Amino acid sequence: MGESESLSLPSAEVLDRDDPIAHIRQEFEIPNGVIYLDGNSLGALPRSVAQRVHRVIEDEWGRGLIRSWNSTDWYELPSRVGDRIAPLIGARPGEVVVGDSTSISLFRVVAAALTLRPGRNVIVTERSNFPTDLYILEGIKRMQPEIEIRQAAEGEDPTHLLDEQTALLVLTHVDYRTGHIRDMEALTQAAHRVGALAIWDLSHSTGIVPVSLNDSGADFAVGCGYKYLNGGPGAPSHTWVAPKHADRVEQPLAGWLGHRDPFAFTPEYVPAPRIRRFITGTQQVLSLSALDEAMKVWEHVEIAHVRAKSIAQTSRFIAMVEAQCAGLGVTLVSPRDPDVRGGHVSFAHEHGYAVMQALIERGVIGDFRAPNLLRFGFSPLYLRFEEIDQAAAALADVLRTRSWDAPRFTERRRVT
Amino acid sequence: MGESESLSLPSAEVLDRDDPIAHIRQEFEIPNGVIYLDGNSLGALPRSVAQRVHRVIEDEWGRGLIRSWNSTDWYELPSRVGDRIAPLIGARPGEVVVGDSTSISLFRVVAAALTLRPGRNVIVTERSNFPTDLYILEGIKRMQPEIEIRQAAEGEDPTHLLDEQTALLVLTHVDYRTGHIRDMEALTQAAHRVGALAIWDLSHSTGIVPVSLNDSGADFAVGCGYKYLNGGPGAPSHTWVAPKHADRVEQPLAGWLGHRDPFAFTPEYVPAPRIRRFITGTQQVLSLSALDEAMKVWEHVEIAHVRAKSIAQTSRFIAMVEAQCAGLGVTLVSPRDPDVRGGHVSFAHEHGYAVMQALIERGVIGDFRAPNLLRFGFSPLYLRFEEIDQAAAALADVLRTRSWDAPRFTERRRVT
Repeated sequence: MGESESLSLPSAEVLDRDDPIAHIRQEFEIPNGVIYLDGNSLGALPRSVAQRVHRVIEDEWGRGLIRSWNSTDWYELPSRVGDRIAPLIGARPGEVVVGDSTSISLFRVVAAALTLRPGRNVIVTERSNFPTDLYILEGIKRMQPEIEIRQAAEGEDPTHLLDEQTALLVLTHVDYRTGHIRDMEALTQAAHRVGALAIWDLSHSTGIVPVSLNDSGADFAVGCGYKYLNGGPGAPSHTWVAPKHADRVEQPLAGWLGHRDPFAFTPEYVPAPRIRRFITGTQQVLSLSALDEAMKVWEHVEIAHVRAKSIAQTSRFIAMVEAQCAGLGVTLVSPRDPDVRGGHVSFAHEHGYAVMQALIERGVIGDFRAPNLLRFGFSPLYLRFEEIDQAAAALADVLRTRSWDAPRFTERRRVT
Repeated sequence: MGESESLSLPSAEVLDRDDPIAHIRQEFEIPNGVIYLDGNSLGALPRSVAQRVHRVIEDEWGRGLIRSWNSTDWYELPSRVGDRIAPLIGARPGEVVVGDSTSISLFRVVAAALTLRPGRNVIVTERSNFPTDLYILEGIKRMQPEIEIRQAAEGEDPTHLLDEQTALLVLTHVDYRTGHIRDMEALTQAAHRVGALAIWDLSHSTGIVPVSLNDSGADFAVGCGYKYLNGGPGAPSHTWVAPKHADRVEQPLAGWLGHRDPFAFTPEYVPAPRIRRFITGTQQVLSLSALDEAMKVWEHVEIAHVRAKSIAQTSRFIAMVEAQCAGLGVTLVSPRDPDVRGGHVSFAHEHGYAVMQALIERGVIGDFRAPNLLRFGFSPLYLRFEEIDQAAAALADVLRTRSWDAPRFTERRRVT
């Protein structure tokens, strides 16, 4: 009798057979012998990307040379890719632009948003936010020392820190460690009640958890291109600005490609209409083209199907790990309620680092997050239910046999 | 009798035969029928880039997945590529880092440099600076309204604007329109005399004009990856910080990959030692790898040879155009003295836009810069002397026959 039956779970075979998006996996290259549970750190390679980038290099750059800025769509790519991302985050065409790292995009929207709340100097965030988000706020304070940053402690409700001095509430929608989903609408409303604006980091949301930026009343958002969007290592980030702000706000990373008329070369900056003013300099076309190509997968799949499969997979993994690893030192850190759980699941284990290294050696690739978290990301576009079962069994075996307790695993290296 | 003989110039055939770096051209893909005089906007494609990027996509990303951050050199790429660039700009290994657009890198160094001159609020620059540099300074002023930006008028000596309130002198080393080379050492010394710091934009210098950052006493510099370094469309920029500042200064675009220990995920930012603190977020690995590969060309060529050939080619082009186009409305805008002329040559012509379009249709690709400049960039790594002669002859023919005077040329489109 298999594990799924003893837990009264449907068999993986049946689930994979009935999975309405199972065919999407064939759009990806998944190496043999690997169960990839780290698509939330770096998404897998969509099959068509290599050919697309080859074409960009050989035809557009090599043969087209400078002419390709006009004859291909290099110039429009930031907006075109933005339009592909928009439906995943509850935005409309023309509201999203793509470029630069998530950290830089966050700096841009925070600095811009501050100008909409003159006379207010407080930014509220959470101490458990992704560190780079905190660093960027620190960086803004370095330029504007009058800024006060209030960090809600772990578990503390950040809305308690909001007041009439608060300019911005800056939060990550899905917690990078626990996977906990914040209530975007309620938190945005709480910010608005005191006259503040709400900025959302969608790094662990876009492409896995449906987001409703316009409907929730959010003001600004940024997200990541290399996780669930599978745009490749370091793929550029996306930026959304609520239409009511987009034409009113100016951002300080003002570069020529965000100018209304870049090729007039005027000494004065005149921002482009709407979201295009959130472009700064010349974009990295090879990386941006890879993301554009990766986004084509979404022409054949709906985010609602992805979310349904994601919940089924994370729930199954939790149930299996808890059944098979009982007494072996793992504790669920992610929410048990799937409605507030994103696309990844974390378990604490005292020797988390070594356990994850041992798993990776067996081909089950998740990641480790300090201080003690085993983090497993589930990208439903290419993950089979069968692999969920295999991953849970591998974890149970590593723990049962203590195979993690070897110098090659316990010696700490850098892991992203 | 050929044009070169009537001008008492050596024949192109002899010059190409005796060119010590002629063999480098075979490292590049130059399309048939094209004379490419726009390598100062987008460098040509080095032959090995396509294969390298293919390997990064298929092997490192596709098969290595997240493991490649450790097992390949993705994490070290910003420094490794920086070390390749260092000798071209008079910097030492460990002093240069690569990432993000030139505009963003400029913002980073200007904002950082300001913190080294507390109590001073003036930034001196030139109104003829590349517009994005002016926009970035405006952007900084948007965050720090106490900043005063003083722009030297066209032709005015910017050192006259320096005083005891001046924090920074921000200049571009080679003028993007005229190609005029500023005296880095003298201008830096002038800034230092009033206690200000000197920041240099090397966008039209790196890879074409030897630069001596350390020897000239400069404080900060940024440069471009997609012009004379041939890194591909939008290739990331480079940043140099004088060693005396690097460990003392903090920059506001503080991101996790510039943290001393990114994977400790501490809520407080602790800058990495030296130049690595000028990295912000995750880098676009495909574009960065293309630049890394393109930089390998420099293992086989010295910048002094490039400069010598550059001077020979620009001087020859000026002589030929002035001889063949006399009375046809072109006026040299670039310096006649090769010692203060960079890698491109500009001529003014009343109908510059249409003339350039007509030239491009004939396969002679230069670019147009408002309001009336025909700009020709000469990348000696892949340009033959023979092509100089052909380009000059084509320009003379376009002007003599007025073939530019057709609606398809005079109708204005976007040109980078």
